[in-house]
Amino acid sequence: MTSSDTTDQRPHDRFDKRPDERPDNRPVTGTGRGATTPDGAAADAGSDEQTPEVVRLLLEALGAKVRIDDASLTRARTDESGHATDAPPLAVVEAEDVEDVQAVCRICTATGTPIVSRGAGTGLAGGAIGGAGEVVLSTARMNRVIEVSPENRLAVVQPGVLNGALNAQLAEQGLWWPPDPASKDISSVGGNIATNAGGLLCAKYGVTRESVLALKVVLADGTLISVGHRTVKGVTGLDLCALMIGSEGVLGVIVECTLKLRPAITGPVPTIAAFFDDVEAAAHACSAITAAHLEPAIMELLDEQILAAVSAHTGVDLVGRGRAYVLLQTDGAGAEATAEQIRAVLEENGARAEFADDPAEAARLVEVRRQVHPAMTRLGTALIEDVAVPRDRLAAMYRKIAEIAQRHDVVIPTNAHAGDGNLHPTFIFSGDEVPQPVWDAADELFQYAIELGGTLTGEHGVGILKRRWLGDELGTDQLALQRRIKAAFDPDGLLNPGKVFAPAEQAPANRR
Amino acid sequence: MTSSDTTDQRPHDRFDKRPDERPDNRPVTGTGRGATTPDGAAADAGSDEQTPEVVRLLLEALGAKVRIDDASLTRARTDESGHATDAPPLAVVEAEDVEDVQAVCRICTATGTPIVSRGAGTGLAGGAIGGAGEVVLSTARMNRVIEVSPENRLAVVQPGVLNGALNAQLAEQGLWWPPDPASKDISSVGGNIATNAGGLLCAKYGVTRESVLALKVVLADGTLISVGHRTVKGVTGLDLCALMIGSEGVLGVIVECTLKLRPAITGPVPTIAAFFDDVEAAAHACSAITAAHLEPAIMELLDEQILAAVSAHTGVDLVGRGRAYVLLQTDGAGAEATAEQIRAVLEENGARAEFADDPAEAARLVEVRRQVHPAMTRLGTALIEDVAVPRDRLAAMYRKIAEIAQRHDVVIPTNAHAGDGNLHPTFIFSGDEVPQPVWDAADELFQYAIELGGTLTGEHGVGILKRRWLGDELGTDQLALQRRIKAAFDPDGLLNPGKVFAPAEQAPANRR
Repeated sequence: MTSSDTTDQRPHDRFDKRPDERPDNRPVTGTGRGATTPDGAAADAGSDEQTPEVVRLLLEALGAKVRIDDASLTRARTDESGHATDAPPLAVVEAEDVEDVQAVCRICTATGTPIVSRGAGTGLAGGAIGGAGEVVLSTARMNRVIEVSPENRLAVVQPGVLNGALNAQLAEQGLWWPPDPASKDISSVGGNIATNAGGLLCAKYGVTRESVLALKVVLADGTLISVGHRTVKGVTGLDLCALMIGSEGVLGVIVECTLKLRPAITGPVPTIAAFFDDVEAAAHACSAITAAHLEPAIMELLDEQILAAVSAHTGVDLVGRGRAYVLLQTDGAGAEATAEQIRAVLEENGARAEFADDPAEAARLVEVRRQVHPAMTRLGTALIEDVAVPRDRLAAMYRKIAEIAQRHDVVIPTNAHAGDGNLHPTFIFSGDEVPQPVWDAADELFQYAIELGGTLTGEHGVGILKRRWLGDELGTDQLALQRRIKAAFDPDGLLNPGKVFAPAEQAPANRR
Repeated sequence: MTSSDTTDQRPHDRFDKRPDERPDNRPVTGTGRGATTPDGAAADAGSDEQTPEVVRLLLEALGAKVRIDDASLTRARTDESGHATDAPPLAVVEAEDVEDVQAVCRICTATGTPIVSRGAGTGLAGGAIGGAGEVVLSTARMNRVIEVSPENRLAVVQPGVLNGALNAQLAEQGLWWPPDPASKDISSVGGNIATNAGGLLCAKYGVTRESVLALKVVLADGTLISVGHRTVKGVTGLDLCALMIGSEGVLGVIVECTLKLRPAITGPVPTIAAFFDDVEAAAHACSAITAAHLEPAIMELLDEQILAAVSAHTGVDLVGRGRAYVLLQTDGAGAEATAEQIRAVLEENGARAEFADDPAEAARLVEVRRQVHPAMTRLGTALIEDVAVPRDRLAAMYRKIAEIAQRHDVVIPTNAHAGDGNLHPTFIFSGDEVPQPVWDAADELFQYAIELGGTLTGEHGVGILKRRWLGDELGTDQLALQRRIKAAFDPDGLLNPGKVFAPAEQAPANRR
């Protein structure tokens, strides 16, 4: 069976249809040797004319770890964004150790084949999806916890370990790895690091970058390097560990992660539900909490539409008590005193604020928040966006979103990690195809976030879905520099070539 | 007056004499246009044969900001390490704004002249010292605080602001920038960022990298780029902000810094003085505190020799109560409860631990710690080293230092930021020239730190003094990659060319 057999089984590709971009993720491999043609057949195919040389070499070297069945190839074409490539990749390799990763990279470099490294496949920007002519290198099976060292407050893990599973294991030793993406039960540590994923706790506990000490990385040609340090401090040479974090698979393949841990949180976790008359007032109150030097662990803002959807979805009735809702938690030493101060600021800013009566009710409120994503998908097809703005511009961003929604006649329920200024405007529409007004509204929204001093992606990454806007935020000079750095790591341009830094003809630096 | 007039006024150059390396910092400028000759005269000098073209162009563009007087040039040849270049730089430019920096870079690129960017000159690795044929670009006068935003918990400052002065200003608004190098009263924010400087508070509050949100950077050709974000989260493109931090002037010139602030620490700061029978026991106790999930703000270990020297220097009698001493402080919410738990762990590990009676005594104890550096210089000529090891290897490193000291018959008083595993073995000797046994001992010490999973510099940087060992830690493949990244930023190799990545003929990747 060849990969081309699967082309009629493509998943829905609702984000494929923007007329001014062909998001087919078709790689340009002009610099590689033995470059593959778009239909996935190697130009210099061996005895079996249907099997590309790279696949033959991979099968020889890695046997059953190389998947070319329809189901595997179809799965690797998409992620949680719903975006899919136009055609399946050549193969999916389920690496089981560092040597497997090196073997794949050597074979792909020898044959000029693009490599898409992939973790749990839970990305929201199409950053780890494989298309025609590409090999998907999965590290999902590299899921061992190699070491936990309380003495050094670190853990060494393979990239495929799931975030939630890791923390369950660490908790047994009174330790904790802070990164907390909403997807933690299904997303992997490697993917988390590759996107510098955020989550609910960043304002107090930092982004993923602050919780990684060292990485082992396989370069495109199979070279294994160790970056970062096992020590708290270390400044020998350039900080390539920090550079790898959030690099979305374009610089190298992460094969081992040394994580900086914290002592597990103990003691009470006061939980506040605050209702407001409108979303701008709620946003102002959140900014006021930051300005008052208070540090909630969680500060999640839900607008009226989100609140209605999530109440309907979970059966927890939060409707009718206000047109905006903020869930707050404090933790650690002094949690209760901090929570009282926070309640005072909320009330000064027009909130009706109530403490959860007991841990069970607090857990119920947090679960409501975690159900935002599934609740949204019940409203229709959901395109989840991810802008971040300076924390005092949260209300301004909400105001602009309302104005954009009205003008384009689109629906944009929006929740926010309000402590971070990170908003998730979610476009809801019918059918699989993104309507033009949605793209137009999204475009305006990104531009306004940048104008406010913000960014077009706070935590999901650029992937395929936002590469068109990359130059708008970075500027021409920095974009050129970033491409030169990419080339320093990957001179043949084989690592995730259709993503982030896709060539200008695929994703122009200047939009439309 | 020309720069060559100053060659007989060189500062003492006690670290210049290692027979197997010529640390003269003489740049190799083969790729530049109009490269200068070693004596500083431009190859294509203009009308005044004594004035190199680059200096003439700088004077035309920047007037009195360009210093060619003996005192300025002599000062720029050295830093707090005591290391000095063999000859003065061509000029020192005191930039006053971003445009000045861009002008210097454009002129230096046009003339192929190396640029050494420099802050307050308090470095300990010779990373910002200027030599023959080089222009020193000082940002010391760019010392404005541009913005303090409590709402966004950030400050925007020019790089020349001193660390201590900044925090004095922030304290008025209840804010704090955590990086706390011992030199904070005389060192600049820009230099702090350029070296990812550490200090006393890193285990609890992170290294400098965790406290920087964004930077404006001028590249070698004068291009201005903005890296990082004004937001808590932001993952658009590669994290060049993190890459700039600790890059020691080889990638670009930092001209503006957006700093991530914390609320100022309030409440009591319990302070413990703990005495031990030997330094290994003290190191074990510090490791035990980390392993017990306790987080002191400060945990400073002084061995017997340091304790004696600093007691003599300050008049505070800490001698005769033990052969090793640890100073600890806790802060923030729960500080007192944490301090009691820490005291219990100390006593379980053989300490005689006492709380300071009052804030005045606590301040006196902290001041004693801060006087380690001046106290050392009273013992003789001091070469301060800076290894870091995993926190559970602290005792092993102390044991090895004692063994090395005995075998080479050298004196190595050693203090440590014990919460970080960061040791400062200080070689004491007579005269200006580093004796061969000191180099041999230092070399063994670096190798052992790397062997333990540590690093040859925790916070001071590579600069000139450690470039010889860079390849030992990074490995050949990563060193080559780091050099390619350097070239992506600075294709002509004009930024700090004699430092960190000095060409192999100046600093071989493999030592001797």
